[in-house]
Amino acid sequence: MSGYVSAKSRVLFILTLLTLGSVLAICLPAAAAASVDGSLKLMPVPASMTVREGRFRVDEDLTIGGRSPQTGRAFKAAARFMSRLAGRTGLFLKQDFLAAQDPPGEGGVLYGFERAGALLPNEDESYALTVDPDKVTLDAKTDIGVLRGLETLLQLLSVDEAGYYFPCVDIADKPRFTWRGLLIDVGRHFQPVDVIKRNLDAMAAVKMNVFHWHLTEDQGFRVESKVFPKLNQLGSDGMFYTQGQIRDIIDYAAERGIRVMPEFDIPGHSTSWFVAYPEFSSAPGPYGIERKFGVFGPAFNPADERIYPFLDAFLKEMSALFPDPYLHIGGDEVEGHQWEANPAIQAFKKKSGLADNGALQAYFNKRLLKILTKYGKKMVGWDEVFQPGLPNDIVIHSWRGPKALVEAAQKGYQGILSNGYYIDLCQPAEAHYLNDPLPPDSPLDDRQKALILGGEATMWSELVTPETIDSRIWPRTAAIAERFWSPGSVTNVDDMYRRLGLVSVELEELGLLHLKNPDMLLRRLAGDPRIEPLKVLAEAVEPLKNYERHGQAAYTSLSPFTRFVDACAPESLAARAFRKNIDQFLTGKDPMLGREIGATLALWKANHVLVLPLIAASPALREIEPLSLGLARACEVGLEALDRLMKGQSQPAAWAEEKGKILAEAAKPAAHAELAVLSAVTKLVEACAGPVK
Amino acid sequence: MSGYVSAKSRVLFILTLLTLGSVLAICLPAAAAASVDGSLKLMPVPASMTVREGRFRVDEDLTIGGRSPQTGRAFKAAARFMSRLAGRTGLFLKQDFLAAQDPPGEGGVLYGFERAGALLPNEDESYALTVDPDKVTLDAKTDIGVLRGLETLLQLLSVDEAGYYFPCVDIADKPRFTWRGLLIDVGRHFQPVDVIKRNLDAMAAVKMNVFHWHLTEDQGFRVESKVFPKLNQLGSDGMFYTQGQIRDIIDYAAERGIRVMPEFDIPGHSTSWFVAYPEFSSAPGPYGIERKFGVFGPAFNPADERIYPFLDAFLKEMSALFPDPYLHIGGDEVEGHQWEANPAIQAFKKKSGLADNGALQAYFNKRLLKILTKYGKKMVGWDEVFQPGLPNDIVIHSWRGPKALVEAAQKGYQGILSNGYYIDLCQPAEAHYLNDPLPPDSPLDDRQKALILGGEATMWSELVTPETIDSRIWPRTAAIAERFWSPGSVTNVDDMYRRLGLVSVELEELGLLHLKNPDMLLRRLAGDPRIEPLKVLAEAVEPLKNYERHGQAAYTSLSPFTRFVDACAPESLAARAFRKNIDQFLTGKDPMLGREIGATLALWKANHVLVLPLIAASPALREIEPLSLGLARACEVGLEALDRLMKGQSQPAAWAEEKGKILAEAAKPAAHAELAVLSAVTKLVEACAGPVK
Repeated sequence: MSGYVSAKSRVLFILTLLTLGSVLAICLPAAAAASVDGSLKLMPVPASMTVREGRFRVDEDLTIGGRSPQTGRAFKAAARFMSRLAGRTGLFLKQDFLAAQDPPGEGGVLYGFERAGALLPNEDESYALTVDPDKVTLDAKTDIGVLRGLETLLQLLSVDEAGYYFPCVDIADKPRFTWRGLLIDVGRHFQPVDVIKRNLDAMAAVKMNVFHWHLTEDQGFRVESKVFPKLNQLGSDGMFYTQGQIRDIIDYAAERGIRVMPEFDIPGHSTSWFVAYPEFSSAPGPYGIERKFGVFGPAFNPADERIYPFLDAFLKEMSALFPDPYLHIGGDEVEGHQWEANPAIQAFKKKSGLADNGALQAYFNKRLLKILTKYGKKMVGWDEVFQPGLPNDIVIHSWRGPKALVEAAQKGYQGILSNGYYIDLCQPAEAHYLNDPLPPDSPLDDRQKALILGGEATMWSELVTPETIDSRIWPRTAAIAERFWSPGSVTNVDDMYRRLGLVSVELEELGLLHLKNPDMLLRRLAGDPRIEPLKVLAEAVEPLKNYERHGQAAYTSLSPFTRFVDACAPESLAARAFRKNIDQFLTGKDPMLGREIGATLALWKANHVLVLPLIAASPALREIEPLSLGLARACEVGLEALDRLMKGQSQPAAWAEEKGKILAEAAKPAAHAELAVLSAVTKLVEACAGPVK
Repeated sequence: MSGYVSAKSRVLFILTLLTLGSVLAICLPAAAAASVDGSLKLMPVPASMTVREGRFRVDEDLTIGGRSPQTGRAFKAAARFMSRLAGRTGLFLKQDFLAAQDPPGEGGVLYGFERAGALLPNEDESYALTVDPDKVTLDAKTDIGVLRGLETLLQLLSVDEAGYYFPCVDIADKPRFTWRGLLIDVGRHFQPVDVIKRNLDAMAAVKMNVFHWHLTEDQGFRVESKVFPKLNQLGSDGMFYTQGQIRDIIDYAAERGIRVMPEFDIPGHSTSWFVAYPEFSSAPGPYGIERKFGVFGPAFNPADERIYPFLDAFLKEMSALFPDPYLHIGGDEVEGHQWEANPAIQAFKKKSGLADNGALQAYFNKRLLKILTKYGKKMVGWDEVFQPGLPNDIVIHSWRGPKALVEAAQKGYQGILSNGYYIDLCQPAEAHYLNDPLPPDSPLDDRQKALILGGEATMWSELVTPETIDSRIWPRTAAIAERFWSPGSVTNVDDMYRRLGLVSVELEELGLLHLKNPDMLLRRLAGDPRIEPLKVLAEAVEPLKNYERHGQAAYTSLSPFTRFVDACAPESLAARAFRKNIDQFLTGKDPMLGREIGATLALWKANHVLVLPLIAASPALREIEPLSLGLARACEVGLEALDRLMKGQSQPAAWAEEKGKILAEAAKPAAHAELAVLSAVTKLVEACAGPVK
């Protein structure tokens, strides 16, 4: 009858409005407060900042201009700055088009730098930003520093009754680590150019400076080789980057002050190479592109002399294509069976005095190192390349843990840390945030500490597609970016989360889909634009963590990643806020907070009856019924406990035991996901009835 | 205190749930019904269809295969079909990868065709689709017909208790018009490659077959010329398509059975050409890229013999780049002042016996026609090219109206209609839907009717950016696509709207941003992820229609298009549903419907207090306060009227007059937008108190 109208489901909410004016008066201004009160929301936090009295008004008259010398990079960044500022504020800026020859305006933003920055580790990225009521001054040694400062200035945008402004500040900022990277694995799931570009923009927004491009994997060979075109023709299902696209992306990154380091993962993780060249593997072919995920047998044959001229020619081509002085050769997870089963390889090991596969790989790496050195590249490799006998001008990239990194540094190797930054594992931002490449208790001395270059967040792509990858990377990676940039003393988790939610919205202006696509997936699953109950449920749910989701289905690179779990954020900020509220409530039993918690529990409980018709209309949603029901039942338990706590009453231990069963049932994974609010409900129960077993 | 939690605002909705079980029981299953009851949702409606008993189950065992001969186009379309099906259903299809050599599976989807289709008008796009319980058969004369049939099959996907299925049908389908186009103006606002590609996908989904690429405008020269590189270098701000990108897009379109017709708009609308070549204009330069919108003076100088070799060389290059046999030369809106003011042109007119500017333009067009004919192209031009003396193998593209088209056909010219399909004007889908290129009362005879090739929706881009363009094109263009494809007798507006809402969600799977980006813009404006009150308001609001918005600000191609109005759909389907509900209520005073209307009015009324804190937190939102307040006040009036009507009471005429003032105040545009529900409220008032003056 009323067709499309989505007002219908909202009707439910209005009648409450009419009777709940007091709740409203409390809730909504508070909701908006974060952006009203002028509190700073910088992420990463600068090395040093003083906030002064006074405000620089941002209106249509705002101008930006550079002192000489200009480079294209700073000028283009200034143009993007103005465009983003106009987009956020809706201001019709009079300086709506920047021409390189524009003189700097009086009383606007004036930036300057001494020289163009080089895209190298240890390049100067520092800047000094001063906002006065009548002018903004941004100075840096390099144009890259200007870029970093412009991002800070944009994050300073604030609001008061008179409009937009920048608060008066003095900021002197520079990074703690010089290597602040994001790895994107385009092997297991190809990610088109626009995915890469929007993520480069986001990296720049949080001052990251290394894009680690994991270009080859068992599941795909993603880079065009003109020397060996069969590699990408046969190894990619047609999903690879042309050299033109690669150059375009390198330029795009360079304009944002970001290095692009390619990775060609050998000798393992290399099935896709052998589709074209089975003769270079350690066992007879033929090979097909791998569709499954895991650690697979195929590996280059280090004992076959033919592979070295092949790799030489290939790496020569790639060394010319990628200007970065570092080249990552992978080197992780050589499964070993192909080597063990190949008599020629065994004979070679014996003949060459190579005791084990580690020694064989070290031999292979030494050969590679020679090639790379010839082409002016420094070798980077995963932990496994750290083998006796390799010179210490290679860089160890640690996925196994900080201990390995410490050992490497103690032996004089440079290192970067990725252990603890595996964002594919759907862990909370907090876990990554508190993981420090150089923790306060590091056993390293100053000289060794200098060898720890920084770290990289790693977006392994088994379970992500171009539709979902942004939501797996952002906003959590902004917390990692802060870890790499800000002083080690910046560790306030609550404040990090406060800023993370705001930065998340700002990142969206760069084209990221992390906030939009969950709704889209839910609409697609429901076949309907009305998805409110699914959104309510999704906020209480997170994907299974670590590698648990992998075990739930026979996932391949061709599986659909369009289910409910794919629409759930790796970390629900709403669920976290709920848990925080419970913790706070349990400290003081504040009745106002108790009522708010009660209302949330009641919402989640009642949501189940709203989810049911959507499930009935969509077979793809049927798997979520246990989650929805479990949430409803757990919330019913929570409401009972809350009621007792509010009344100052307790429950017998038997009650806790009985409710514990309900909570245990609700804790079972379903739809490859799990409820993210049960620990908090359990605390309520335990607070009024003792331990839940 | 609770930071990010968005559950807070939803708390308001839960307490109602707890007391309103009965309303729920009625509302929500109904909401889901459209996708449960198996009703067909095809758009465009096929030429002929019989629905039979029986269902073909869609599960993981589904296969698709082709009879020989295969072409890449059908095979690739089959692969996309399977991928989209998996995406919608979450099914892990066993046939998750299609190889060209796969034999057709038993009992799956079997498609066949006789020959590869040509990308030409009047090519056969017909297909026959039969769904039986144990197999699906799709046959066509050409592979393009197979593409059309696969889209139909995907739209047939339905749901019952056992899962997904295709209903058993016999469909014999073919288009009514052979020219079913979408024009995208990339001149006034450049649209990157990905915008074009996702819109090509959407066109294919609703069986459109001509992408009209409006490539040059006063505001930008968007195509790379290797012969005259200054054209794009100086005329585009760097925003143009390389020839490689153009070829890529042409291939992409061809794979979807879509022709690509370029337009180079001359002799007017050509300022951007003259930035590089002022000497070819009719007045001395220099010229800069135009930033404003309107009809501007600069025009080629038809009296200057130098322009013809220039245009010859340029059109030779473009004729080779674009394979389509048609080339659009624009020809619209020559402003005339430059011609009038140029003595040489006036002398030339006199000498050549050209009575007026129309005759001068006809002379120019005849010279162009010669060039195009030499390069194997047929000329298409806007109405203005229809001048005495031009041969009738040109195609008239009518923007002025059907009358012009009829005249052209009567004189033997082929024509396509765009008048009535100007989707930039934010008119309702209904207006476009009921606009027929060949209405039942057409005065044309059959031979003349055959000259009407079809029509094109036109997306002029003054007020759209890559962020908003999809929401201006879709879903309304799907209704236009149906007008061009389906029989002329298919004119049920309500049924069109029923299907439009569902197709809109399906289109989203192709990457369109029409449903996602409004929320994004609201989040950006609010600086906050919690935008529910803004969404409620946006549903009751539409952008100003026709050219009214242009007058609200000094818009240029550099203005921000990120304000509230840009987040409002051109046509609010929710507002339409509300108006329909009022109409229905007024016929029978159904109390259940009355209560639903009352709840909606109450929601909109109370929404204002929720909008206010968001406005306080965002200067960019301050302009919407009158809209929000106007809605609240109008809804208050509506509630009063509704209450009387429900009670069977009337109001004095003076009351209507008083309330009329409130409604008139609410009707004033604000924020470049207007309320879309006032006509319905006015009806309520008039129903209980007589005419509102």
